[in-house]
Amino acid sequence: MKKFVVHQLLNHSLITHPEQTITSEGKVFTYQEFYYRVLRIANSMKKLGIKKGSVIGVLDVNTHRFLELHYACSMLGAVIHTINFRLAPEQMVYSMVHAGDEWIFISELFIPAAKPLFAKFPNWVIMSDNENPETPAAKNILQYETLVKQGKEQELQEAETIEEKDVFSIFYTTGTTGKPKGIQYSHRNILTGSLQLFHHMALHKYGARVSSRDVFMPLIPFFHIHAWGTAFFPIYLGAKLVLAGAADPASQQKLIKKEKVSWMNMVPTQLQMLLEQKDFGNIKVLTGGSPFASGIANRANKAGVTFSLIYGGSDQLGTAISVVPEDIEPDTPEALEWLRTGMRPFPLVEIAIKDKTGNDVPHDGKTLGSVYVRSPWLPNGYYKEPEITKEHYINGWFRTGDLGYFHTNHAIYIADREGDAIKSGGEWIPTGILESILSEHQLIEQVAVIPEYNEQWGQRPLAIIKAKEKIEDSELKVFLSEAVDAGKIARFWIPDNFIFVDEIPLTSAGKLNKKALRDKYSK
Amino acid sequence: MKKFVVHQLLNHSLITHPEQTITSEGKVFTYQEFYYRVLRIANSMKKLGIKKGSVIGVLDVNTHRFLELHYACSMLGAVIHTINFRLAPEQMVYSMVHAGDEWIFISELFIPAAKPLFAKFPNWVIMSDNENPETPAAKNILQYETLVKQGKEQELQEAETIEEKDVFSIFYTTGTTGKPKGIQYSHRNILTGSLQLFHHMALHKYGARVSSRDVFMPLIPFFHIHAWGTAFFPIYLGAKLVLAGAADPASQQKLIKKEKVSWMNMVPTQLQMLLEQKDFGNIKVLTGGSPFASGIANRANKAGVTFSLIYGGSDQLGTAISVVPEDIEPDTPEALEWLRTGMRPFPLVEIAIKDKTGNDVPHDGKTLGSVYVRSPWLPNGYYKEPEITKEHYINGWFRTGDLGYFHTNHAIYIADREGDAIKSGGEWIPTGILESILSEHQLIEQVAVIPEYNEQWGQRPLAIIKAKEKIEDSELKVFLSEAVDAGKIARFWIPDNFIFVDEIPLTSAGKLNKKALRDKYSK
Repeated sequence: MKKFVVHQLLNHSLITHPEQTITSEGKVFTYQEFYYRVLRIANSMKKLGIKKGSVIGVLDVNTHRFLELHYACSMLGAVIHTINFRLAPEQMVYSMVHAGDEWIFISELFIPAAKPLFAKFPNWVIMSDNENPETPAAKNILQYETLVKQGKEQELQEAETIEEKDVFSIFYTTGTTGKPKGIQYSHRNILTGSLQLFHHMALHKYGARVSSRDVFMPLIPFFHIHAWGTAFFPIYLGAKLVLAGAADPASQQKLIKKEKVSWMNMVPTQLQMLLEQKDFGNIKVLTGGSPFASGIANRANKAGVTFSLIYGGSDQLGTAISVVPEDIEPDTPEALEWLRTGMRPFPLVEIAIKDKTGNDVPHDGKTLGSVYVRSPWLPNGYYKEPEITKEHYINGWFRTGDLGYFHTNHAIYIADREGDAIKSGGEWIPTGILESILSEHQLIEQVAVIPEYNEQWGQRPLAIIKAKEKIEDSELKVFLSEAVDAGKIARFWIPDNFIFVDEIPLTSAGKLNKKALRDKYSK
Repeated sequence: MKKFVVHQLLNHSLITHPEQTITSEGKVFTYQEFYYRVLRIANSMKKLGIKKGSVIGVLDVNTHRFLELHYACSMLGAVIHTINFRLAPEQMVYSMVHAGDEWIFISELFIPAAKPLFAKFPNWVIMSDNENPETPAAKNILQYETLVKQGKEQELQEAETIEEKDVFSIFYTTGTTGKPKGIQYSHRNILTGSLQLFHHMALHKYGARVSSRDVFMPLIPFFHIHAWGTAFFPIYLGAKLVLAGAADPASQQKLIKKEKVSWMNMVPTQLQMLLEQKDFGNIKVLTGGSPFASGIANRANKAGVTFSLIYGGSDQLGTAISVVPEDIEPDTPEALEWLRTGMRPFPLVEIAIKDKTGNDVPHDGKTLGSVYVRSPWLPNGYYKEPEITKEHYINGWFRTGDLGYFHTNHAIYIADREGDAIKSGGEWIPTGILESILSEHQLIEQVAVIPEYNEQWGQRPLAIIKAKEKIEDSELKVFLSEAVDAGKIARFWIPDNFIFVDEIPLTSAGKLNKKALRDKYSK
């Protein structure tokens, strides 16, 4: 019986859509050309001794070469370690040693930043169109394009022996709360998890819906769950794929226009930056990774961006997506609010929200609890971390570390990370909701709410604000009082203090770096 | 980790869409009510000793009870044998004995026809709203609705123990060419095969596209691959489902209007009958099972029916679906022609077409060969038939027994069953293409082309025609000559003889019964 493995997708598109294209670094590759490049690099990798179980580290932005390595590794049975280039250098080295990277494929772009790493690892492949890129010394330094040229254009016998249970990839959590944790994904888990997401978007006539005629441009990096599955889906579908490489928002806008991009994914901060570009036409955007502030959602909507919100993470893949309930018309303000805040688990996924005593919270639209997930593509645990695994993977369920509640229609709302929420007088204050409301203030560009110590209440919320101009505390309190009157928040959630800053630090995943803020401002 | 089993779909829809409805026999059940009925019947079945591995035969049209049994069997781990009620009685008994049916669940509707069966099997459950339906004698006769009333409304512990590799169902081929052959499907194979089909239709903006807001009414019976997966998909999606029971075309039309049905499946002959009804609004139709004559396709298109053609069968599930190539605009005559004739394998499915020597035929839009299929959901073979299995399931491939060719754009065209095609002077004449062209004649209602013996050529095509009025042979020859001039067929394909009949016999699957015609007319 045919196996359910990643490179099958490419074999398929080769037959059904040989002329379809992948655009990357100003070049255009047909699926057929792409396929032959994959065969060539895979055959050369085989000659280097890379085989089933070998771990390959990749340091690159989203390019055709990075994508080729996905399929070449799949055919060889090698494990692709998509290195998070936004990690601190020591964390990056930690993940490369922990994963056991045998060869490191690095874009020329990253050589300056990765200089210290060359002394630590022996085997490097440089990815560049430049024939003689300058590189630090290491035991073996090879050129990717030379390997492509030298590689045979023939199918690999190994490709037929790969099974769905074999490990396809390993990647690491961002490690904002400790050392990065590795997660291995089998071919089956990564494929079913990725395809479920896109199938679901195809089935719904709103938000970031997808179809076979979309042009895909992921801004989520491949190191982040293979660009949330976009390394697989356009090829599965035979659709046009545009890879943005290291493009900044202005260049992204140009690519969108030139290539007629219709579908993208990005975190809210990327969306916020893209929205500053004018004239990018109508696009559909899948976003997620942090609570989605209503201020950004409204701006996106006005700019012609239709969006869906996904819930998930490196250690669970995608598990829920925002919905427009059946009794609400799409393209209404109400629908927009649901797309921003109400998610339903994918079919075959179960989500439980439990209170401190382990009981399910009522579906009442307000009672917060810890979010647990059970899905067909959940990994078995963290790689070589039995203790941390035990804390998070419990009887087939994954304890996400998120705080959320159920709407009365059973949609879920993710309010905060458990570590980020504020406990004031024994009651939770979810910072995401406060940030969302503050983001609607016309002078506020970005806002993070963190706890500050308070003798009477334990913790009180403190708002860190990047604003277009200074706003008086009293004005913000009046602004939030209106949200209290509208029933959106409780009065005791209103922060006592507001701090104005020039920049709010972000994590490697583009989220608000609350740990850094707490270290600096929480007293 | 959560298992990939059929009843998970219901658990999911219970949480996400408890108020969504299933309409059946004039009654409306919410998913929640449906779920509790499933729990009750399952608990009663457990009391009867039905357990993991028990085989349950079901004789019913598409009703809520038949659907309930799908999910109750899944929870118990029992195997549902969906009995083909259109089989000849002795074939039906053969399949029930061969499958090992322990209990037979029969609709009151089928009691008259099934009378002789009551003496042969001991355990019967009658499905009826009638409290005391008249039944022949048998050892055990129970009432379905009583079992529902008596059953506990509690979850079954067994349900958590069912695994994806466990057998979910068994059903039998129609047996037009010998005794029916049984095929067992695991939970995983039946689910992945069914979901792939619908996901694919969601991704394409043409034909029988589906979305979460469609209202589904399958006319394909549950015994035929669970109505081509419609027993699962609406529930997976949380969509409204309408079950047509034994409705005739006039009643189907009323249901379509009343329930706002938007998506249906049916074989071409059912579509032809439905088209005789006026005013059924715009519907999307998935069809297949036999070559789709252009005459019917044109009539459907004029009537507001958008359709896709699926390729598959009991022994392979769905494996390909018609496409509109990327360079052709949907809703054009060209697109219509592709939807009728050009299919692409689903992703993860491979299709090979081989000539007599086992070599792949060129993708030239004309060279016919034997069609082979390889897919992730292919069964292992025919149940308890090692010899026949060996002939059809070869090295992971399924030899379909169909004759087809590749279009130059790699889409496939299925021209005929190998047993139906005509070998004239050593050359194949695919009867499906001839039938399709003849169906465009305004006076022809139905047409079957079969071989007649010819001393010079071996075989020659003979057309059996059901017409509105008699047509002269010479007129038909001129009509077909135009198709020759248009490059659609070769001149030697034009039949020498035409026979006019009042009715063309159909098989139990609603296809032209060519075996019966050959027995009668082929000399």
